[in-house]
Amino acid sequence: MRLTIGVDVGGTKAAAGVVTSDGRIIEKLKRSTPAASPARTAEVIAEAVAELMSRHQVSAVGLGAAGFVDETRSRVLFAPTLAWRDEPLRRGVQERVGLPVIVENDANASAWAEARFGAARGHEHAVLIAVGTGIGGGIIIAGELYRGRWGIGGEPGHYRVVPDGRLCGCGNRGCWEQYASGSALVAEARDFARRSPEGAMRLLQLGAGTPEGISGPRITQAAREGDPVALRCFQTVGGWLGQGMADLAAILDPGCFIIGGGVSEAGDLLIDPARAAYEKALPGRGYRGLAEIKVAELGADAGLVGAADLARRPTGPR
Amino acid sequence: MRLTIGVDVGGTKAAAGVVTSDGRIIEKLKRSTPAASPARTAEVIAEAVAELMSRHQVSAVGLGAAGFVDETRSRVLFAPTLAWRDEPLRRGVQERVGLPVIVENDANASAWAEARFGAARGHEHAVLIAVGTGIGGGIIIAGELYRGRWGIGGEPGHYRVVPDGRLCGCGNRGCWEQYASGSALVAEARDFARRSPEGAMRLLQLGAGTPEGISGPRITQAAREGDPVALRCFQTVGGWLGQGMADLAAILDPGCFIIGGGVSEAGDLLIDPARAAYEKALPGRGYRGLAEIKVAELGADAGLVGAADLARRPTGPR
Repeated sequence: MRLTIGVDVGGTKAAAGVVTSDGRIIEKLKRSTPAASPARTAEVIAEAVAELMSRHQVSAVGLGAAGFVDETRSRVLFAPTLAWRDEPLRRGVQERVGLPVIVENDANASAWAEARFGAARGHEHAVLIAVGTGIGGGIIIAGELYRGRWGIGGEPGHYRVVPDGRLCGCGNRGCWEQYASGSALVAEARDFARRSPEGAMRLLQLGAGTPEGISGPRITQAAREGDPVALRCFQTVGGWLGQGMADLAAILDPGCFIIGGGVSEAGDLLIDPARAAYEKALPGRGYRGLAEIKVAELGADAGLVGAADLARRPTGPR
Repeated sequence: MRLTIGVDVGGTKAAAGVVTSDGRIIEKLKRSTPAASPARTAEVIAEAVAELMSRHQVSAVGLGAAGFVDETRSRVLFAPTLAWRDEPLRRGVQERVGLPVIVENDANASAWAEARFGAARGHEHAVLIAVGTGIGGGIIIAGELYRGRWGIGGEPGHYRVVPDGRLCGCGNRGCWEQYASGSALVAEARDFARRSPEGAMRLLQLGAGTPEGISGPRITQAAREGDPVALRCFQTVGGWLGQGMADLAAILDPGCFIIGGGVSEAGDLLIDPARAAYEKALPGRGYRGLAEIKVAELGADAGLVGAADLARRPTGPR
C-alpha cells in the first residue's frame, strides 16, 4: 500500500492528509494560511507535510490550489481570488519536504477524485462543477484529467454568460461564477433583504437581523423550511447553473456533470432547478442523450484525495 | 496507397472526392442535394460514390454532414439548418454502395483534416471554428478528434452568449452563431443599409442597389477597399468571434484556434478584430500563453478530406 499526501490549499486554510491508493484518508491535519503571503503559505504546507511524514511512510505530495496552475504542475500562474501571481509553489514546498511534489488546480484534483473514487466512476467523459465562493471546474476526457495546452483548461467559471455583466475577480465582466456560485446565491438573498426586509423576514431572522448576516447555510436552512424567498434564490442560481451546463454540453457533450463545492450540500434545492434549466436549454434536446447530473460524493475531502492520487501518477495528466 | 472517398454533405449540394492517405484529392464530383429530403440525399450521395468507385479502387466512405451526428457515427440526430431528424444516413448510403461508411459532423471532419494535413499540424490541443452560415466546431484533444459521450461535442455555435438574445435555428436564443457567423455579418450590413442607405452607399452599390443584394463576399470586397461600414461589420462580428475564443480558452485552453468556413476567406479582416477581442477577454491574460489563431489551410475541401481520412481509421475517434 503506497501512501501519498494530498493538500487542499485554500485562501485562509489548508488541509493535509495521508491517502491510500484506494482513496482513503488515514490521517488529516488542518492549518491556517495567510492569503496575502504565498511564501508563508508554502512554509505552512511544508510544516504540515513534515508532521505527517514523521508518522507515515509516504512517497509523494500533491497540492490542490485555488488558481490557474501551469502545465508542468509547478506554478500557480494566477488566482482570481488570491494574491498568487506566477508563484513557484511546487519548488517552495519540494525544497522543504524532500519528496516529489506536484501542484494541481483544486477543482481538477476534485474532479479526478470523483472520477477515481466518487460520483463520476464509470464515466468516460465527465465535468465537475465546484460551486463555492466562485466556480471551479474539472474535465475528465477518456478517463483522464484534461488540462489543456498550458494547464488552464477546465475554468468554466470564467466564460462569459452576460455581456457587460457583473464584475469578476478575474478582471472581466459577466463571468459564469458571478451568477451561479455561492457568492451569487448570498448576494441575491442579501440584495432582496435590503430592498424588501419584510419579505425576507425569515432570512433576516436566521442572519441575526442584518442582510450581511445572511450566509449560504442560512439560505439553505430557510429553503428547507419552505421559505419562498430562499427557494427563489436557489431557483435563480440553479437556473444559471443549468444554463451553463447546457453551454458546456454544447462544447463537451459529457455523459455526466458532478456538482461539488460547498453549495452542493444544498442537494436538490440546487440540483432540481439546475437540471430543469439544463434540459430546457440543451441544444438539440429531444434528439440527444441527457447527461447525468449528480452531487459529488467525496465532499470537502475531494481536493485533498485527488491531489494525493495525482501525485502517485508519474506521467501526470495531459 | 489506400484510397477512400470523402463526401461533404451540405443542405443544397454535396461534394464527393477520392482521397489518398496523405490527404490529396485525386478526383472530385459535385451534386445538388434536396435539403428537404434526407432519403433522396442519401441516393444522390450513393450515386456520386458509385461513379467514383467505377474509376478508383476505394476501401471506405466518410460522410461529413452539417448536423449533430451520434457517437456510433451512423445517424444525423439533429441539424439546426436542415430537415434532418434522427436520420440513418450511414445505413442509407452503405446499403447502396456496399462499402464501410461512417458519418461525421462536417466541422469535426474539417478539424481532423486541419490537424492531419493543415493549419493545426503539430498541435496536441486545437479547436477549429468554421465560420459560415452558422458556426461549426471541431475539437482536437491529445491529437485525437473529440466527440463526447453522444458524439455531439464541439458545437460551440450553440452555447449562449446573450441571455434572451437573437433567435437561433436550433430553437434557443442568444447562440454564438447568431453573433459571430457569416449570417450575422450579412445581417449587420443589411440592417445598416436599411437604416442608413446613404452611409451604406458602397455596400448597396455592390449589392445591386438593395440591402438584400449585400452578400458576404461583397462586404469583404468593400472592406478591402477600405469602406468604413464594411470594416465596422467585420469588427463587430470579429469581436464576437474573439470573445467566444476567450470563452473556449477558459474551458479548453487549446494551443491553437483554426478559423475555417467561408467567412475565413476574408483573412485578416476577420482575424485581426477576433484576435484583439480574444486577447482582451482571455481570463488570466498576462499570466498564461496565448493560443495561436490561424486561418484554415484546406479551404472548402477540408470536410471532404477529413471525412475520407476518418473513414480510414478503423477504431474511429472518441
